[in-house]
Amino acid sequence: MISVDDSTLKAFLEEDVGSGDVTSMIVEPCIIDACIVCKEGAVIAGIEEVSRIFRLVNCNVTYSVADGSEVKAHTTIMRINGDARSILAVERTVLNLMMRLSGIATYTRRLVSMVKSVNPSVMVAATRKTAPGLRILDKKAVVLGGGYMHRLGLYDMVLIKDNHITLIGSVKDAIRRARSIHGSKYTIEVEVKNLQQAIEAVLEGADTIMLDNLSSSETEQIIKELRSRGLRERVKVEVSGRIDESNIMEYARLDVDYISVGKITHSVRAVDMSLEVND
Amino acid sequence: MISVDDSTLKAFLEEDVGSGDVTSMIVEPCIIDACIVCKEGAVIAGIEEVSRIFRLVNCNVTYSVADGSEVKAHTTIMRINGDARSILAVERTVLNLMMRLSGIATYTRRLVSMVKSVNPSVMVAATRKTAPGLRILDKKAVVLGGGYMHRLGLYDMVLIKDNHITLIGSVKDAIRRARSIHGSKYTIEVEVKNLQQAIEAVLEGADTIMLDNLSSSETEQIIKELRSRGLRERVKVEVSGRIDESNIMEYARLDVDYISVGKITHSVRAVDMSLEVND
Amino acid sequence: MISVDDSTLKAFLEEDVGSGDVTSMIVEPCIIDACIVCKEGAVIAGIEEVSRIFRLVNCNVTYSVADGSEVKAHTTIMRINGDARSILAVERTVLNLMMRLSGIATYTRRLVSMVKSVNPSVMVAATRKTAPGLRILDKKAVVLGGGYMHRLGLYDMVLIKDNHITLIGSVKDAIRRARSIHGSKYTIEVEVKNLQQAIEAVLEGADTIMLDNLSSSETEQIIKELRSRGLRERVKVEVSGRIDESNIMEYARLDVDYISVGKITHSVRAVDMSLEVND
Amino acid sequence: MISVDDSTLKAFLEEDVGSGDVTSMIVEPCIIDACIVCKEGAVIAGIEEVSRIFRLVNCNVTYSVADGSEVKAHTTIMRINGDARSILAVERTVLNLMMRLSGIATYTRRLVSMVKSVNPSVMVAATRKTAPGLRILDKKAVVLGGGYMHRLGLYDMVLIKDNHITLIGSVKDAIRRARSIHGSKYTIEVEVKNLQQAIEAVLEGADTIMLDNLSSSETEQIIKELRSRGLRERVKVEVSGRIDESNIMEYARLDVDYISVGKITHSVRAVDMSLEVND
Amino acid sequence: MISVDDSTLKAFLEEDVGSGDVTSMIVEPCIIDACIVCKEGAVIAGIEEVSRIFRLVNCNVTYSVADGSEVKAHTTIMRINGDARSILAVERTVLNLMMRLSGIATYTRRLVSMVKSVNPSVMVAATRKTAPGLRILDKKAVVLGGGYMHRLGLYDMVLIKDNHITLIGSVKDAIRRARSIHGSKYTIEVEVKNLQQAIEAVLEGADTIMLDNLSSSETEQIIKELRSRGLRERVKVEVSGRIDESNIMEYARLDVDYISVGKITHSVRAVDMSLEVND
Amino acid sequence: MISVDDSTLKAFLEEDVGSGDVTSMIVEPCIIDACIVCKEGAVIAGIEEVSRIFRLVNCNVTYSVADGSEVKAHTTIMRINGDARSILAVERTVLNLMMRLSGIATYTRRLVSMVKSVNPSVMVAATRKTAPGLRILDKKAVVLGGGYMHRLGLYDMVLIKDNHITLIGSVKDAIRRARSIHGSKYTIEVEVKNLQQAIEAVLEGADTIMLDNLSSSETEQIIKELRSRGLRERVKVEVSGRIDESNIMEYARLDVDYISVGKITHSVRAVDMSLEVND
Repeated sequence: MISVDDSTLKAFLEEDVGSGDVTSMIVEPCIIDACIVCKEGAVIAGIEEVSRIFRLVNCNVTYSVADGSEVKAHTTIMRINGDARSILAVERTVLNLMMRLSGIATYTRRLVSMVKSVNPSVMVAATRKTAPGLRILDKKAVVLGGGYMHRLGLYDMVLIKDNHITLIGSVKDAIRRARSIHGSKYTIEVEVKNLQQAIEAVLEGADTIMLDNLSSSETEQIIKELRSRGLRERVKVEVSGRIDESNIMEYARLDVDYISVGKITHSVRAVDMSLEVND
Repeated sequence: MISVDDSTLKAFLEEDVGSGDVTSMIVEPCIIDACIVCKEGAVIAGIEEVSRIFRLVNCNVTYSVADGSEVKAHTTIMRINGDARSILAVERTVLNLMMRLSGIATYTRRLVSMVKSVNPSVMVAATRKTAPGLRILDKKAVVLGGGYMHRLGLYDMVLIKDNHITLIGSVKDAIRRARSIHGSKYTIEVEVKNLQQAIEAVLEGADTIMLDNLSSSETEQIIKELRSRGLRERVKVEVSGRIDESNIMEYARLDVDYISVGKITHSVRAVDMSLEVND
Repeated sequence: MISVDDSTLKAFLEEDVGSGDVTSMIVEPCIIDACIVCKEGAVIAGIEEVSRIFRLVNCNVTYSVADGSEVKAHTTIMRINGDARSILAVERTVLNLMMRLSGIATYTRRLVSMVKSVNPSVMVAATRKTAPGLRILDKKAVVLGGGYMHRLGLYDMVLIKDNHITLIGSVKDAIRRARSIHGSKYTIEVEVKNLQQAIEAVLEGADTIMLDNLSSSETEQIIKELRSRGLRERVKVEVSGRIDESNIMEYARLDVDYISVGKITHSVRAVDMSLEVND
Repeated sequence: MISVDDSTLKAFLEEDVGSGDVTSMIVEPCIIDACIVCKEGAVIAGIEEVSRIFRLVNCNVTYSVADGSEVKAHTTIMRINGDARSILAVERTVLNLMMRLSGIATYTRRLVSMVKSVNPSVMVAATRKTAPGLRILDKKAVVLGGGYMHRLGLYDMVLIKDNHITLIGSVKDAIRRARSIHGSKYTIEVEVKNLQQAIEAVLEGADTIMLDNLSSSETEQIIKELRSRGLRERVKVEVSGRIDESNIMEYARLDVDYISVGKITHSVRAVDMSLEVND
Repeated sequence: MISVDDSTLKAFLEEDVGSGDVTSMIVEPCIIDACIVCKEGAVIAGIEEVSRIFRLVNCNVTYSVADGSEVKAHTTIMRINGDARSILAVERTVLNLMMRLSGIATYTRRLVSMVKSVNPSVMVAATRKTAPGLRILDKKAVVLGGGYMHRLGLYDMVLIKDNHITLIGSVKDAIRRARSIHGSKYTIEVEVKNLQQAIEAVLEGADTIMLDNLSSSETEQIIKELRSRGLRERVKVEVSGRIDESNIMEYARLDVDYISVGKITHSVRAVDMSLEVND
Repeated sequence: MISVDDSTLKAFLEEDVGSGDVTSMIVEPCIIDACIVCKEGAVIAGIEEVSRIFRLVNCNVTYSVADGSEVKAHTTIMRINGDARSILAVERTVLNLMMRLSGIATYTRRLVSMVKSVNPSVMVAATRKTAPGLRILDKKAVVLGGGYMHRLGLYDMVLIKDNHITLIGSVKDAIRRARSIHGSKYTIEVEVKNLQQAIEAVLEGADTIMLDNLSSSETEQIIKELRSRGLRERVKVEVSGRIDESNIMEYARLDVDYISVGKITHSVRAVDMSLEVND
């Protein structure tokens, strides 16, 4: 699966180590065994990247679980063998990375399970609300959690939002301009605020409409209208806007394709993990 | 105050924009006014960096509030004037940055207020549990929220943790080795698990002791004993370990110098903000 | 020994995996042990490259046999430990590579053994009739089989063939032109069709003559004449042209230095191998 | 039809030419006519790619036969007009390519003729056992020979093999997981070992079942049972596993849809061809 | 810790292996276990680099001791598993590297122990008298031995030596010019020959003075004078010039900060080590 | 004589100068005369390379002595005229190089003189125990000292050592394999441990035998036996293994051809030299 390259991982290390780990220097040179333990039930992400970081500092790694695994509290994730000072110097960086990514995967999996329990065909999608510099890793964690990656950046699909529509004047003109510039090179999604815009978007050939910041009943109403006019079949429907575990079930039961949840990546709860040195 | 340089901010932009914002391309060239609005009560951080990003894409920025300000819901943070396509292309990046940093500052301010209400001399400190690549910005947000930055990385102080002590054998030997290698170049802090280790650390001349993962009553007991032996005056005392808004008051009333809270940076709740184009 | 670099190996992987292995995605995340088993007697080649591919996808590899080893049917070649989905995603690519390269090494070894049994000083050589994109790997497999690599490409020696002679007019003029342009920078080999051309080539100082597409008796006759004139000692002699296991012994008993066999690389019979997941 | 792009063809050339063809340099600049002659009866493939290579080095090409044509021995395939040194420099690369691809097309045509003689509705299919880097070209040659391309890579259909079933536990669970993850986005094929697995696969809605490494009588038995239960009509049936010209007729007479043959691409016998310069 | 990159390590290998190890070729392909044994008591350095070299040739490595460890005679340093021919081909290169670096670390540790026994605050420093091409590795070995790295090259501090002073005219002018050009960007050290120059340097604000090629009694005299004038506190004092194990104790007991020893890197005594193949 | 090319010399310079010599910058631009003085009696090596380095930075050089000359203490080796800042910037690099190489030549000359005084036909040989990256220069210094260069790398002769014999099984089989693979292309030397192996090696046609790590009396015994059997005349004899100035005379009086001494290059004592600026 996609990931960042080694230079990014080295930059993460350098951010913490800087001119040198002045504490680990006080440890006598020795080879130790250590392990990373997950302290709470979670879906694990970041194993690939953490392994690569350990190898960058000449440690051997053996895996106990795989990226995307669901584990119970107190599960050993991987074992590391190498120079004590190297292991301690990278400890915080690897934990910061794996705790965040596992937090994303865990929350994603939770939402996916909730949604699939009532509507197996609905996908939980991530947004671009990721931490600056961590887009690819955050998105990968979403996929490992069972979610839908959605666009990686501004470059891979057309998503016409309210600000674009305001500037161009109408949904119809916005779609037409996109088609005239890009032809069929990119998927076109349009954020719509009401039934009229939704109809306009479908008639103009949008691939997906996003119903943003609408209540579940407003959403339901619009989709029903589209269905009754034979328009629902012609587009994918995404709902978004302040959806989280407290209200996702209201949307899950609707006739939608994607529920996108900004909180998955913008307000990550880190999973509790630690690196333990084996005596 | 410290911050990242422009190359880092450009890298944040490139991560999102990649080969180009294929949606904003559909907007006719025009100069617009826009503003960033904070949708909920918060302490704002990231104004400096967001302003620099806008200037990197040739937009003018006027500030309504300053970094570190506490604002009510629906407050305008800054106004931007420039090319519509540039503003829309950087929208997501600047919001991601400011929503995270303001989340950190807001939560820090909340904890600081709680603590200061009972014990004005206690500081709330950040840890190194930051998102990879965002250390400096996360730490700066803590300071804007009123917290203590603590060490920026492994290079700027000696912090002897349990794994170091395990490998070296005792608190005493660990401190002695640190002094023999570094002399007085770095502040020395030692994580201790009980009274005996605490006494050992103080007698060996540690600058700070960290009481980690102890209950507030255990913590209180140890500090009282140190005070009774005339040792409390000789060190700073930091408490840490799963402390958050739910239990920080138990520690705030104690005779401590720093309460460090990993959650401030490892589990950030983003503040809700949006970029609005003025008609 | 020479090999391709990681970017080539990654390109092999991407050719098969493309936008993702949609089947392995259905496997629950887990760490497995697997092994590559050779189903028939063979000389193994490709272990280095296959190991590097597995490491590129974060798997640990332990070797059971080395490149160039002759193994019996049902021998385990290497053991792999890693994420099931990664191992399954690269399975076909690594098998395709090792099955082809081992096929080349096995057939080369067979011809070398046949030839050496009657004439230990004769070498079996590969040609440039390799699969496009696989030149270096195909040639390396020949060497692991005990054969002679011969030229890697058009850049490393002068080999004047019939078409060059036709265009230049004579063997003599061709060799003289080569010497006038290149001096003694490159070895010069000349393809000759009969005794007269052979004599001409030797007298002009060719390093090697290639007797191409001649019967073994014609070949023998020409070499005997060269020997009787004291010319054989002054050149290396290579024979080539539709030689394979069915007729190589006719040439092996002659007074030649190299027998080159296009079939070694242009008509490879893959060795049967499989990747087995250990329960 | 699909093919590789020019950068791939250029890379093939560069592999052979490297820093320069030191032999062709000795030829005086001149324009010549040359032709590619097929020395044996064959089905020709690679004409498009070879023509493009000649044009990349500024030669004109006129075709005598088309891709997919069946030719007799000593047929001229194409004529080339251009700079002698360019033609000689690309000679080996174009022959290597066309000899391999024609070998694939020829053998495919042979198997297809055999099969169609007894059962016109059965298709001969290629596998993914292609030379690394040559997937698209190898598959195209299969199609030119009259065969079925089958999947191009891991990305374009779900093919559940024994290793996947071992890891997931049962055919049923494997298919269910595939459907739950991919919906109806991909065709689903399942490798089955016996009647029970075959029934399970059909009942779970597999699009195709692959009977792998079974004797023709076992295969016949299973298909008859499926037919008797009314299940045969609901799936395509593919047979595979060490099938080649020696035993394909045993399978051709059965009630199957596809016979896939790894040997078509993993053990290619090159067709004998040469480039001849016209005097 | 700092090190060289893989391209440097590969260049070391290529220097020895060149066009191929013609002896190891005669060994039948096989996988072996081997170990590196230190034949005499020593401080080990070079483990990181040697491990990386072994991995570059596809061998697995397990560590027995860590860089900087002090070992007794006949200690196993690391174990290697891989292709016999690869291990034998890199044997000499890895031993040359580790024997030199361990020689540096061992001699450094010896001097450090001597000095610390009488004056724990004095540091033993390396000079730039390293083998060409090995600066970083030689300096790293010094640090692993417990010494002070001092400047890595001409680019990281100002060190005004006798030749500079001769050309500029006086210590005072030299320091002033340095300050006017560089401001406070670099530390400034000045080599002084007598008390007068020492005083001049301190008064001009040198960070460090180097008393070069003076006897220990002359050195003592100058430092006493500086102390009596209240100047000693304002600078670091380095002594240098033909100091080795025979006379270092004369300087160790003085009121100095650094004793630099060229011999540590310019006249290295290699530690005796061998690579042993396990039967 | 062989040497490294300019790019290697430039790399040596860049290692020290890096982003610039911040000290020499403080010197006013001026042309100076300087000289390199040898402070102790020595055999000089490195003059060619040092001269080339000075010319690379546009200085003129005049020689006082030639490479390989034996000089007394305080002899001027060469005079340099050029820009003061250039001379000072390369000072350390050229001294490091010449001090090492002269150390090698001096120690070689000393051993050669000792050996020749009792046995003029015996040669003192270097090994491959050179500093990584300095093979050619170290070997050249040996030759300038009067020693024998021996092999430059693994590519220029066959030297069968104990590890090879262990893996192959016997001296006889090892030599036979070497001859069958390489014919007479390379000289073959074999390390032997006792008389039996020595006889075996001679009878199999080894060109040289190496008696490694044997006492001088054991060595003498084996050679006498070979002589008595008429085998000594058929091979060259090399002795090696922890030989240095303390014990070389024991071996020098024996009937040997080469005495190889690892210490010549692995534990170099640098000759004391300095660069002096002429007032």
